[in-house]
Amino acid sequence: MHIPSKFKVTNPDTLYRFIKDNPLGTLVSFSDNDIDATHIPFYLDTTDLRKVKLQGHIAKINPLGKKCNDGDKVLVIFHGPNAYISPNFYPSKNETGKVVPTWNYSVVHVKGSVSFNYKSSWITKHLEKLTNSHESVSQSNPWSMSDAPKEYTNKLINAVVGLEIAIEDIVGNFKLSQNKPTNDYDGVVRGLKNSENELESMVSMQMQGNK
Amino acid sequence: MHIPSKFKVTNPDTLYRFIKDNPLGTLVSFSDNDIDATHIPFYLDTTDLRKVKLQGHIAKINPLGKKCNDGDKVLVIFHGPNAYISPNFYPSKNETGKVVPTWNYSVVHVKGSVSFNYKSSWITKHLEKLTNSHESVSQSNPWSMSDAPKEYTNKLINAVVGLEIAIEDIVGNFKLSQNKPTNDYDGVVRGLKNSENELESMVSMQMQGNK
Repeated sequence: MHIPSKFKVTNPDTLYRFIKDNPLGTLVSFSDNDIDATHIPFYLDTTDLRKVKLQGHIAKINPLGKKCNDGDKVLVIFHGPNAYISPNFYPSKNETGKVVPTWNYSVVHVKGSVSFNYKSSWITKHLEKLTNSHESVSQSNPWSMSDAPKEYTNKLINAVVGLEIAIEDIVGNFKLSQNKPTNDYDGVVRGLKNSENELESMVSMQMQGNK
Repeated sequence: MHIPSKFKVTNPDTLYRFIKDNPLGTLVSFSDNDIDATHIPFYLDTTDLRKVKLQGHIAKINPLGKKCNDGDKVLVIFHGPNAYISPNFYPSKNETGKVVPTWNYSVVHVKGSVSFNYKSSWITKHLEKLTNSHESVSQSNPWSMSDAPKEYTNKLINAVVGLEIAIEDIVGNFKLSQNKPTNDYDGVVRGLKNSENELESMVSMQMQGNK
């Protein structure tokens, strides 16, 4: 991915925060001369900051577990909100006319080697961590895995495969009008703010926190 | 991508509509033993329904134009909103307890061969179509390329490369609780509806239109 320097994000805290806020990753792999992408909610394990990992799981019937081998290099993409930017948002349109449309978005790219894990103890722990991380944020009365009958969850645990990606490279491309003069930047924030399109107001919010 | 039959979408009108509503595509390519992804707003050209194409452009300084060759197979992914689904949303939690969390999302995967276009006449036409498609939807007073000084737009047109993907395969994975009993489906719609997280309310809206 080509990243102009003004959009490039390398601060690990910012990148980890982004993944935690946008955990549905696009896992891209290449095998048998074919590009494949699988959409997986990831848990970011930052227990050891020298060995940060993405952890997830897929159904055993998902062919990815056979097409991919331990050690295969994969790319995982995390997406923030995105929006079309009209030249009408820029005050400088009325001054010079030298404006064109663009698109604002933010993504984080992670590269690393994948490994699969079939141990039910690992999978159980992973599912607990993943569940608790989301329940604690979104639910006033958090559901816990122990709320379901053990026989039922055991059956489901046996139907999935764990996977882990040791992060070797991580970079963000936060393309959010940082290349624009302040007046035009603020014009974009205003232009998107009251949009009926929820993604557009999310980008506006993000831009207010970004500068 | 493994797609359970209940989530699989093959209707071209639905898939084309989805791309028009979520035009920022993730173009994934493979070259020099490396997976690369570039984020591009696409224009879907449905002029000839037997030869539907994705059309976009990248900066000339983007190395993708050199790493990729005409005819290379690529994958383009389009993303809808996504949301964590808490077991608390399911009325059946209180009846059987046999519920676990999941994630709802919708994606469209397009496969095809990429070709690059350096002709300024093609690029100009493409930028006009792309711009008009967005301005007409979002702006009460649509901006048009002719509003900018010709010298200025000519310079920008010279700085980009056009690209086109002839669609060879297209499929959707709309994972939106269609595998759940009606009561639980409606519980998810309700649970996400009034969320402060805009993506969650977008998924609820989508589910109301989907069933």
